[in-house]
Amino acid sequence: MSGEPSAEVARLRDEVAALHAELVRYGLVAWTAGNVSARVPGHDLMVIKPSGVSYDDLRPDNMIVCDLGGTVVEGDLSPSSDTAAHAHVYREMPEVGGVVHTHSGYATAWAARGEAIPCHLTAQADEFGGEIPVGPFALIGGDDIGKGIVATLAGHRSPAVLMRNHGVFTIGRTARAAVKAAVMCEDVARTAHLTRALGTPVPMAAGDIDALYDRYQNVYGQTGPSVR
Amino acid sequence: MSGEPSAEVARLRDEVAALHAELVRYGLVAWTAGNVSARVPGHDLMVIKPSGVSYDDLRPDNMIVCDLGGTVVEGDLSPSSDTAAHAHVYREMPEVGGVVHTHSGYATAWAARGEAIPCHLTAQADEFGGEIPVGPFALIGGDDIGKGIVATLAGHRSPAVLMRNHGVFTIGRTARAAVKAAVMCEDVARTAHLTRALGTPVPMAAGDIDALYDRYQNVYGQTGPSVR
Amino acid sequence: MSGEPSAEVARLRDEVAALHAELVRYGLVAWTAGNVSARVPGHDLMVIKPSGVSYDDLRPDNMIVCDLGGTVVEGDLSPSSDTAAHAHVYREMPEVGGVVHTHSGYATAWAARGEAIPCHLTAQADEFGGEIPVGPFALIGGDDIGKGIVATLAGHRSPAVLMRNHGVFTIGRTARAAVKAAVMCEDVARTAHLTRALGTPVPMAAGDIDALYDRYQNVYGQTGPSVR
Amino acid sequence: MSGEPSAEVARLRDEVAALHAELVRYGLVAWTAGNVSARVPGHDLMVIKPSGVSYDDLRPDNMIVCDLGGTVVEGDLSPSSDTAAHAHVYREMPEVGGVVHTHSGYATAWAARGEAIPCHLTAQADEFGGEIPVGPFALIGGDDIGKGIVATLAGHRSPAVLMRNHGVFTIGRTARAAVKAAVMCEDVARTAHLTRALGTPVPMAAGDIDALYDRYQNVYGQTGPSVR
Repeated sequence: MSGEPSAEVARLRDEVAALHAELVRYGLVAWTAGNVSARVPGHDLMVIKPSGVSYDDLRPDNMIVCDLGGTVVEGDLSPSSDTAAHAHVYREMPEVGGVVHTHSGYATAWAARGEAIPCHLTAQADEFGGEIPVGPFALIGGDDIGKGIVATLAGHRSPAVLMRNHGVFTIGRTARAAVKAAVMCEDVARTAHLTRALGTPVPMAAGDIDALYDRYQNVYGQTGPSVR
Repeated sequence: MSGEPSAEVARLRDEVAALHAELVRYGLVAWTAGNVSARVPGHDLMVIKPSGVSYDDLRPDNMIVCDLGGTVVEGDLSPSSDTAAHAHVYREMPEVGGVVHTHSGYATAWAARGEAIPCHLTAQADEFGGEIPVGPFALIGGDDIGKGIVATLAGHRSPAVLMRNHGVFTIGRTARAAVKAAVMCEDVARTAHLTRALGTPVPMAAGDIDALYDRYQNVYGQTGPSVR
Repeated sequence: MSGEPSAEVARLRDEVAALHAELVRYGLVAWTAGNVSARVPGHDLMVIKPSGVSYDDLRPDNMIVCDLGGTVVEGDLSPSSDTAAHAHVYREMPEVGGVVHTHSGYATAWAARGEAIPCHLTAQADEFGGEIPVGPFALIGGDDIGKGIVATLAGHRSPAVLMRNHGVFTIGRTARAAVKAAVMCEDVARTAHLTRALGTPVPMAAGDIDALYDRYQNVYGQTGPSVR
Repeated sequence: MSGEPSAEVARLRDEVAALHAELVRYGLVAWTAGNVSARVPGHDLMVIKPSGVSYDDLRPDNMIVCDLGGTVVEGDLSPSSDTAAHAHVYREMPEVGGVVHTHSGYATAWAARGEAIPCHLTAQADEFGGEIPVGPFALIGGDDIGKGIVATLAGHRSPAVLMRNHGVFTIGRTARAAVKAAVMCEDVARTAHLTRALGTPVPMAAGDIDALYDRYQNVYGQTGPSVR
């Protein structure tokens, strides 16, 4: 179904290293606090950021390759401290090809209050198909964060989950789609914040949200469905 | 009244591709969510962004030329998913030479509450001649958005309309003027937000708003009236 | 007291053109809405931005030289539409060598509410010596704005005034000092906004404000007093 | 324990000059209002920014070397006006290798209200181990600011202190660690502001905060503990 892992891995090292620049460009990350990974299609492998390395210093050759148990297969550095969460998502959600984690400020503020972001914008209906849900509080270091992500997103159209008191995880068919979801999550979280700061949004009809979601997933762009 | 369409179209491909960089520079757009178009003067044609293409990848040669029914005349990619709205504006408002659409955050927050932006700033009086009005909620995919834009702006000096739960559309005599209106709309939406966040603005007299608008449209800059 | 006007003017054309980049860098201006001028020392002349020209296109050779009545002496373009206000300040305040005008958002929000920015920060005490005062509402096109600036700043240590429903004017011994005051005005306006958004600032003693102001004006930096 | 001071000093001139660019990149400073210093290990010396010099103009060769009494040892310019505070910290806290001072807006707003930033985010638990404390109001020019920093941080895990009505001081084992703490302080101050602006954060258990802090200080990144 795909080529040799080595060719795939080389392509994904390029892609994952480059996609981190989008997190920086959109202001989603401070210092080293955010990461992107990609599944190696057809193999039980993923490519992920090294831990604690500056975004300026990311290159294809210092990306880390792990198996889906989180064990390093290629790379001299330690993988992201969020590797276990990424790996759990890939094990449990076979349709997911990319995972992104950030602490982007507006979205994380909703997460700190434990509030889902209600859907009052066409842009949110397009990308998320409704509210952006809140996942449980979970400590880093085992499978708890990954389990919380999977348990929350399993019941939603949304490719983004707000992990309580923590931050955002997004998924996509590709790493690029997951990065897009992270960018759009912060954008709608910000507009939703600004909306509510001065009053109450006008509700949107559930049928309109459904119609927007269906159209965007199937008509927008050049290549058909882009996210989930 | 103008040269061969091919010369005009080439010039407008350059201009429309370049103007998208202003949306990025002023932070009005996330990912691919915003678009600029220009009417081809003297012809029933428009130049518009391709759908779902990154701003980094826009070049004169991948802009799309459509007729004013929204049908692609030149271009290998699908045009912006907002093409029908742009085309409707050009059909109904012959004085309009450029249209811009964004989901810029502060303006969209006013749109999500369904609130017009009241005029308490000289900069808003200059560019918009008073409040920035709210247009109706409308689903994408037909003429409803275009009809809502035209119905709202027909009764206003404002070159910007806040489409409810959606975002901003602006118009201008040229695409550049419409981009300017989009930039100024977000700027005044932000200052109006910050003003109201901590209290109540001092009212401006209607006569002062009129005087500022008249002066700005006729005296400011190097080349006379710049917008509507 | 100074050299030939032509040498001074050439130096100030460079300086004024370059200083506009600081307004852009700090996000104080949208599109073309802000301007810097410098007095030509020892001559009744000033160098100022042309009206409605993009910051990207400013160069020493398209700056405008006016006399202090606001009449163009050198330059093919129209001068800033705020030229009369700048000229009035130079005529009435001989110690002023530079004037800046912006609509920077946080400061303009205080101006729209007609509220002075109270002094609760050491940085504000340093640069402004106390509150940043509000000036009257005045229409553009005559001496009213200039009179309002002078009447307000005459009774204050502050090099910045918040013109009601309009924006910020700052003054300095040089154009660079006036630009610094514009940058610091927005910075303290923003922090003051954020402070009050969630509660009440701790008051500062008047004697502490005086001590900070005196020290900053006489000790800070490499070359003695930097502003007024 | 370390090499000749001249080699160490040369390396630290490079590092301190370069680290100021991080303050600019993250928007923590306006004009010249923020500074970084580094202790020269094994010697009673520090390298610090010159006073009132633009960040664009900082180079290794215009950094200032002072002894820990604040007297200039190498350099033609005056040292930062905050030199006494940096020096006091180095004298009293031998484990500290770097100090940073900013007036970053969100953190300074908490400081102006005299409110500690409560810990409701995993990112804050990781870096700060709990709340970010408030230090006393103190005038510049003697040891009062330095004493306030030391008195406050002595009882806390936090590498950052919010000096009342003033701004942020951070410490680290290296100048780079102190810069990281300054960046993360503003990031969590911002998210905490946004959280409380619309409601109430969900509390975090003290045991969870402890577990996160312990793990981050000992496991995260490539080289073990990064801050205190």
